[in-house]
Amino acid sequence: MKLQVTQENLNKALGTVARVANTRNALPILANVLLKTTNNRLSVAATNLDIAITEYCGAKVSEEGSITVPARLMQDFISNLPHGVIELRLEENKLHISTDQYNSVINGVVADDFPVMPAITDGKTWQISGQQLKKGLQQVIFAASNDQTRPVLTGVLLHSVKGMIYLAATDSHRLAEKNLGASEDTYSLLIPATAMQDLLRIIGDLEGDVRITSDDQQVLFQAGDVELVARLIDANYPDYRRLIPESFQVVATVKRTDLVNVTKVSSLFARESAGSITMNIDEQAQTISVRSVASQLGENTSNATGKVTGSGSITLNSRYLLDALQVMNGDEVSFCFNGKLEAAVVRDPKADDYVHIIMPLKS
Amino acid sequence: MKLQVTQENLNKALGTVARVANTRNALPILANVLLKTTNNRLSVAATNLDIAITEYCGAKVSEEGSITVPARLMQDFISNLPHGVIELRLEENKLHISTDQYNSVINGVVADDFPVMPAITDGKTWQISGQQLKKGLQQVIFAASNDQTRPVLTGVLLHSVKGMIYLAATDSHRLAEKNLGASEDTYSLLIPATAMQDLLRIIGDLEGDVRITSDDQQVLFQAGDVELVARLIDANYPDYRRLIPESFQVVATVKRTDLVNVTKVSSLFARESAGSITMNIDEQAQTISVRSVASQLGENTSNATGKVTGSGSITLNSRYLLDALQVMNGDEVSFCFNGKLEAAVVRDPKADDYVHIIMPLKS
Repeated sequence: MKLQVTQENLNKALGTVARVANTRNALPILANVLLKTTNNRLSVAATNLDIAITEYCGAKVSEEGSITVPARLMQDFISNLPHGVIELRLEENKLHISTDQYNSVINGVVADDFPVMPAITDGKTWQISGQQLKKGLQQVIFAASNDQTRPVLTGVLLHSVKGMIYLAATDSHRLAEKNLGASEDTYSLLIPATAMQDLLRIIGDLEGDVRITSDDQQVLFQAGDVELVARLIDANYPDYRRLIPESFQVVATVKRTDLVNVTKVSSLFARESAGSITMNIDEQAQTISVRSVASQLGENTSNATGKVTGSGSITLNSRYLLDALQVMNGDEVSFCFNGKLEAAVVRDPKADDYVHIIMPLKS
Repeated sequence: MKLQVTQENLNKALGTVARVANTRNALPILANVLLKTTNNRLSVAATNLDIAITEYCGAKVSEEGSITVPARLMQDFISNLPHGVIELRLEENKLHISTDQYNSVINGVVADDFPVMPAITDGKTWQISGQQLKKGLQQVIFAASNDQTRPVLTGVLLHSVKGMIYLAATDSHRLAEKNLGASEDTYSLLIPATAMQDLLRIIGDLEGDVRITSDDQQVLFQAGDVELVARLIDANYPDYRRLIPESFQVVATVKRTDLVNVTKVSSLFARESAGSITMNIDEQAQTISVRSVASQLGENTSNATGKVTGSGSITLNSRYLLDALQVMNGDEVSFCFNGKLEAAVVRDPKADDYVHIIMPLKS
């Protein structure tokens, strides 16, 4: 292998893939990145067996070849080199990296041992605007669970229902669903939320579409020069749509920033009660007041005024409410519920493509 | 106690003092801040018994008084309130905090139990430009030791020698000294580096002088509306000035950014050898080349060209060299030494108010 590549391109590719490589894995080669010449391009790839990410960058290849080198060292090294042309040259599994000022040798491991995710065959392919997918993912991904003992809830569901595409995630305490628009295809992909975090990073400022190809086992996302392959979670997702209430006895619509601020201040007094705050909605006063009590430290009541129908109170986890409010865009937000034992819903009164459900705490 | 204060002022004062308060201390009240009306101002203070910081802020006091409240809760709470006037009112050790929208009660502890550092009596006072002191501290403070088993090296020495004021710090592997200019007074204060970190933060963008008052036991820094009192370290500082070499056989003067870059790149290959890099200075080629070898990973040689007198090589810790280079200002830097077993010196060829010494490693 012998080639020239710019520091800018190689650094970008390593930045995209290297964090998937992991030194804590049982298989030492998974701490490496795979460098491989492909059709006069250099592909840079890393995998943790669940996810594989590959970025292709332009290169001037004079000898084909491949090698794997430690991801962290390679990334740190290349990122510290000055902009300009870098020569990569392989001699007996030693990768020689040269510029005018720098001469380095990094010991590699032959590429034959690097695990490759199986190819997707007979998959179907469709595409969606990258920025639309990114926005949707940001609005649901945090609602997925981290609890590996219930793998089904650690996924983000990307599926079609009655001609619409939806993203959904839930950890059983809260649930987020985003409508991504109409689609003619039908599918249901349960993708690990961690893979979707990587996809968010990869989409970045991408203009244009992301191509999605899937079979029963895997899904491939292609965004610009980057490919991400993830294993699907093999489980039946709960029928969450029947949990979304359709009408409400109490609806308070307030400025979103007001509700963020009063919730944030109240949450400070809710640390010892696992974030528990009580929302009191008063139709007569047209207010939402948020109350929290810390037996040792003190207590707080904060008020926001708005447009209120119905009165009542409900106790919930302030962190879940803040998480939801912070991914919404509108100036106003509607906080809706039916009774203190039923799920509360947060939504934008002017946009019905996003719904967020929070289960109440016992009070 | 009853008073009005702006959120901006109270938030700034809490930001200055609260990080000294510590919940991990054996004395629970040290996790609190002391609020106290003083001459129509509100003083906000915290201490860890080694350091005490007090900030005074303008307030409209209608009833004098004092109380202590949990520092972290108070700071988080006030920082989340909107700008504008806040009312503080004390009722039976409960601090009521109110704005238009927010009503909170924080349970306090009477101020009588709050430990106060003894006053400095018979101390002498002098002053120095705040920005000059800050710049000097930034150039020496990182050379102080963290090793609490040798308290003398955990301090920064502020002393006068032959009519000049110097700041100095050393951890025995490296030594930094800054000349702060002429002074008529004579003194020698060994101040904990941790207190100087707080002072750096307090000086911030302060225009004008810092007043320094000291006796045998303590030192008081007054910077704007903030006072910091620190206990002095009771130990004899080593006679470090005799370690500074006065002439050199090998001197290489190069662009500072070049030396930073080649050292940084080399340090990546020096992780398994505790940062060990070898500097080779070649008079004929007029180069500094930096070499590092990692038995498993590979090796690197990086070059910088400059103006070189004498040839030789020396092995040292790349982190120490980077630390020194990063607090210097000039475009150029001189790297000087006499032999591979003697201290190397890093200095600005155009400024003689700063000198940095690095002890060699055995190679």
